[in-house]
Amino acid sequence: MKIDTSSKKICGRSPQDVLNTIESFHGWTAPGIVLGGFMVDWAQELVGPDIESDAIVESRYCLPDAVQLFTPCTIGNGWLKILDWNKFALSLYDRKNLAGYRIWLDLDKTRQFPDLYNWYMRLVAKKDLPLEILIETIFKAGRSVLSSRAIGMTRFYQRKKKSQIEICSGCGEAYPVAQGAQCAACQGGNYYA
Amino acid sequence: MKIDTSSKKICGRSPQDVLNTIESFHGWTAPGIVLGGFMVDWAQELVGPDIESDAIVESRYCLPDAVQLFTPCTIGNGWLKILDWNKFALSLYDRKNLAGYRIWLDLDKTRQFPDLYNWYMRLVAKKDLPLEILIETIFKAGRSVLSSRAIGMTRFYQRKKKSQIEICSGCGEAYPVAQGAQCAACQGGNYYA
Repeated sequence: MKIDTSSKKICGRSPQDVLNTIESFHGWTAPGIVLGGFMVDWAQELVGPDIESDAIVESRYCLPDAVQLFTPCTIGNGWLKILDWNKFALSLYDRKNLAGYRIWLDLDKTRQFPDLYNWYMRLVAKKDLPLEILIETIFKAGRSVLSSRAIGMTRFYQRKKKSQIEICSGCGEAYPVAQGAQCAACQGGNYYA
Repeated sequence: MKIDTSSKKICGRSPQDVLNTIESFHGWTAPGIVLGGFMVDWAQELVGPDIESDAIVESRYCLPDAVQLFTPCTIGNGWLKILDWNKFALSLYDRKNLAGYRIWLDLDKTRQFPDLYNWYMRLVAKKDLPLEILIETIFKAGRSVLSSRAIGMTRFYQRKKKSQIEICSGCGEAYPVAQGAQCAACQGGNYYA
């Protein structure tokens, strides 16, 4: 996608680079990831450049990909946690002292950009709001539709350690012994026939 | 990292490209993602090039990143699901007819590569098995330490639709009304002070 963006950078990247990166990873230029990029960008600035941050997102839509693309935190390395709350908010925090910042989409502020408000609240059909227009609006809005606050993490900050593994007597595959006498699949959790 | 790999490609990419891609996304060249790349590569070949596949991984370590890097499936676009089973297995399946293939690390087969077996079963200390040696071993082993089977999905294949959202009377942020009178955070789930 090529759009007429402002010159605003996201995490040091040009708008076109951001859009290309999102499309390549996510399959299409999802507006939620562009908005999420502005959230990550602000959170990183607030936390500061010298802090190793872990991340938590409050939705499993779009925001996990924004964090994975614009920070070193991924699902597979354990530095990103996902809460399935469907709230458009994320936090970055110092994994040592648990101090960080939460950034969220501030609905009151979005009212000055009706396309953005109507898209997020699902008050407009996709066919009536072209993706290009929406993405341009998000670039225009940038941080002005977000709010931030300093936080101290009280939950969900622990990285789970891998537990001891052994060979499952049911399937012969390795599994964590903490799960019981057999692996989760052999205990009836299986998802295939 | 530069290592002496075989000429085996993973998902059409050269070994060096694979290692660079993993390091850039995941923060370091995790051996589990290289191995996961061979699993994705085989699953894609079995499913066939013309099928739009969803993915499911049976561990939240490394494998989610292998799928996100080497397929179009990501957490944020909803095409990847994660089971927190800590089993080294993944499946790709046709999202229309739910037919697919499961690929897993076959422990019996890994015994011919003692470094690989000992690494996976955590029988060797990190300091005694240099990362370069382990990654070279994984490239040598490739599919020979994996097994595959055809599957039909019986669970976990549904993509969750976003439900209706409204404004939370507690915090003023948008949340899914299906969660109750207020959002998950205002109901006591909050993670920060």
